[in-house]
Amino acid sequence: MQGIDKVLQEEILQRIARLQEQLQKHGAAAFLVTQHVDLYYLTGSMQAGFAFIPAHGDATFYVRRSIWRAGEETAVRVEPLTSLRAFRGLLERDYPEVFAEAGQSLVATEYDVLPVQTYSKLADILTAGGRCTMIDGSAFIRRVRMTKSPWEIGRIEAAAQVAAEALEEAAGRIREGMTELELMARIEYEIRIRGHIGVMRTRSYNMEVTTGMLGSGEAAAIPSAFDGPAGGLGLGPAAAQSASRKPIVRGEPILLDIGCCIDGYIIDQTRTAVIGGLSDELAEAYAQSEAIIRKTEQMLRPGAACDAIYAAALAQADQAGLSRHFMGYGADQVKFLGHGIGLELDEWPVLAKGFSDPLVPGMVLAVEPKFTFPGKGVVGIENTYLVTDTGPRALTRSPEGLIVLP
Amino acid sequence: MQGIDKVLQEEILQRIARLQEQLQKHGAAAFLVTQHVDLYYLTGSMQAGFAFIPAHGDATFYVRRSIWRAGEETAVRVEPLTSLRAFRGLLERDYPEVFAEAGQSLVATEYDVLPVQTYSKLADILTAGGRCTMIDGSAFIRRVRMTKSPWEIGRIEAAAQVAAEALEEAAGRIREGMTELELMARIEYEIRIRGHIGVMRTRSYNMEVTTGMLGSGEAAAIPSAFDGPAGGLGLGPAAAQSASRKPIVRGEPILLDIGCCIDGYIIDQTRTAVIGGLSDELAEAYAQSEAIIRKTEQMLRPGAACDAIYAAALAQADQAGLSRHFMGYGADQVKFLGHGIGLELDEWPVLAKGFSDPLVPGMVLAVEPKFTFPGKGVVGIENTYLVTDTGPRALTRSPEGLIVLP
Repeated sequence: MQGIDKVLQEEILQRIARLQEQLQKHGAAAFLVTQHVDLYYLTGSMQAGFAFIPAHGDATFYVRRSIWRAGEETAVRVEPLTSLRAFRGLLERDYPEVFAEAGQSLVATEYDVLPVQTYSKLADILTAGGRCTMIDGSAFIRRVRMTKSPWEIGRIEAAAQVAAEALEEAAGRIREGMTELELMARIEYEIRIRGHIGVMRTRSYNMEVTTGMLGSGEAAAIPSAFDGPAGGLGLGPAAAQSASRKPIVRGEPILLDIGCCIDGYIIDQTRTAVIGGLSDELAEAYAQSEAIIRKTEQMLRPGAACDAIYAAALAQADQAGLSRHFMGYGADQVKFLGHGIGLELDEWPVLAKGFSDPLVPGMVLAVEPKFTFPGKGVVGIENTYLVTDTGPRALTRSPEGLIVLP
Repeated sequence: MQGIDKVLQEEILQRIARLQEQLQKHGAAAFLVTQHVDLYYLTGSMQAGFAFIPAHGDATFYVRRSIWRAGEETAVRVEPLTSLRAFRGLLERDYPEVFAEAGQSLVATEYDVLPVQTYSKLADILTAGGRCTMIDGSAFIRRVRMTKSPWEIGRIEAAAQVAAEALEEAAGRIREGMTELELMARIEYEIRIRGHIGVMRTRSYNMEVTTGMLGSGEAAAIPSAFDGPAGGLGLGPAAAQSASRKPIVRGEPILLDIGCCIDGYIIDQTRTAVIGGLSDELAEAYAQSEAIIRKTEQMLRPGAACDAIYAAALAQADQAGLSRHFMGYGADQVKFLGHGIGLELDEWPVLAKGFSDPLVPGMVLAVEPKFTFPGKGVVGIENTYLVTDTGPRALTRSPEGLIVLP
């Protein structure tokens, strides 16, 4: 433990200021931060507790445990929180403008992740006396987190380097008859010893991912609950996605959609491998996925609308006669081309219908055109990009192209 | 995919019947199941959607995706759910006694895990027209899941076997200078190739665990946000628990609190290792942890109160002059001795103050007496037990005793 990095300390204060702009814009008096990832983003620490960020003034991190550790890690003032009952008194003391004055204050929190039970307890405390009302601030925080700083980009690049090294190391070990699970275990080992934190965080309820989706041949094409273009057979109904015990066979596509998480930041990438070669049908579809990502790159510029990028990819798949196979098959198709990524796998923006927001510099997006062929497999590519003033910069470091193994 | 096992199919109908008893007892008309783990428990499938379980009659699994896969996996009737808007109509058609009749029905759901945003959307649909009211059913489902069937015990035993094999394999590779992370990566590799599903599920908000807590010497004694007796230095503020890049040193305790998850079911266990030998102080504390687990075993019988078991362990630690070190140190002590375990790491009951419920046969508990010495390390033991009519049966398979390496 050596205290918080000075660059990061400055940056956290800037993040708080950006959230405060959102609060002011929407007439909210404060944000109560409860989720561990949001706490890390806005304080520098993931210790247990709640951060209170007023629309104007300094934030406080009320910590249950570990208080000592939070003090070492955070950029904001730390106060011990001995019990939920004591919370109201601390807030009234520290933020009289929100709690002790006349009138109605709006206090935002994360309705998208906060469970009803915890919410109810907190809302009872905050709204006691009728001085404040709770509102949904999920969008405020997701919007602030949408654009990344150079410090954050550095972390994602570090994750990209680890993913590239692990993939190279593992790809050399792929053999006929090796099971998907054996290959997955090897890749996970390679990312873990390089510093992968061991979890991939997601924001959506019930969304779960180990390190990604690995699947070969027909097993990869089996649909799942996971909101992504490939599902996978998995290890049974309690782990019904990604790698299974199916042996890898010559001539079938091996989809390697594997990310990792370094210092909290996630990279997502996909490469397709094959022992021997693909059938013409699958080889052509793979080539189309690269063609779509090339076209998408041309559109990944500030001002471009997310839904227009998605529509262009759909049209391109359609023109190639592959619309039924694009991003899943038939009824199990998913309705997006890519997604924001950072501390969580499923950040904003989303390259999908209904997301009309324009791209801005600093956004980071994983773009993943894929084609699913039931009974045969899934092929595709995925890169993570940073949107810059001059166009996209690929953060993914693995070489492109089909990985052909002897 | 080969459809659901007949034994499991019968069992799921029994689980539903047990939940229905809870509903009837509390005057609720139905349970809306939303969380993926609860869905798996009550339908056999973890596909995306909602299960509706009336207090009397048959359950339905309304599936968004994959419908085909849910049909293969589940023991209950499957209906496609094309949109949330369509949900109300389906429910009125299938459960007129809950939605279409006069009067007030209570519909329970999981307030402990369901985020406010998703809850609000669902509650709007269900309570439209004023025919029903939502209530918190978390306790109903947690109570049903608290006692395990022979089928479930079999899964936990399979996980115990994998954890034991992985620990034996990895312990033989521990060397001076090896980092905690390298050892953790090796153990995780060994459990993964044996079928660990790659995640350890938890129910509590913000609770996160990779495969457990591995820490050596002073690094293990660093407190964390995690609600357990050992924290760990971790890989930085974004992964502030468990294994770090600290090298393992001769003579310091290596805490190996590592579980795994097979077919959705978790085993939790802890062993303490050392290269060379422990100091007298730590060796004595380790011996006390075994003494406490022996005493606890004598109390793990049907009818025993959870809080009494915890109080007895506290008294025993106190008698040994170790109360300040028990279950964490000083302000960072946690207030329990053990916890229920099954599909999630943090199930009921808890061996803690305030849990006065008596033990009943079929409960599975991880019991983990540990002692923390700041600057020196953490020592302890943890076994998972099944409560039977004749006393506890250890499900953990790793041999007990300090693991002494040359």
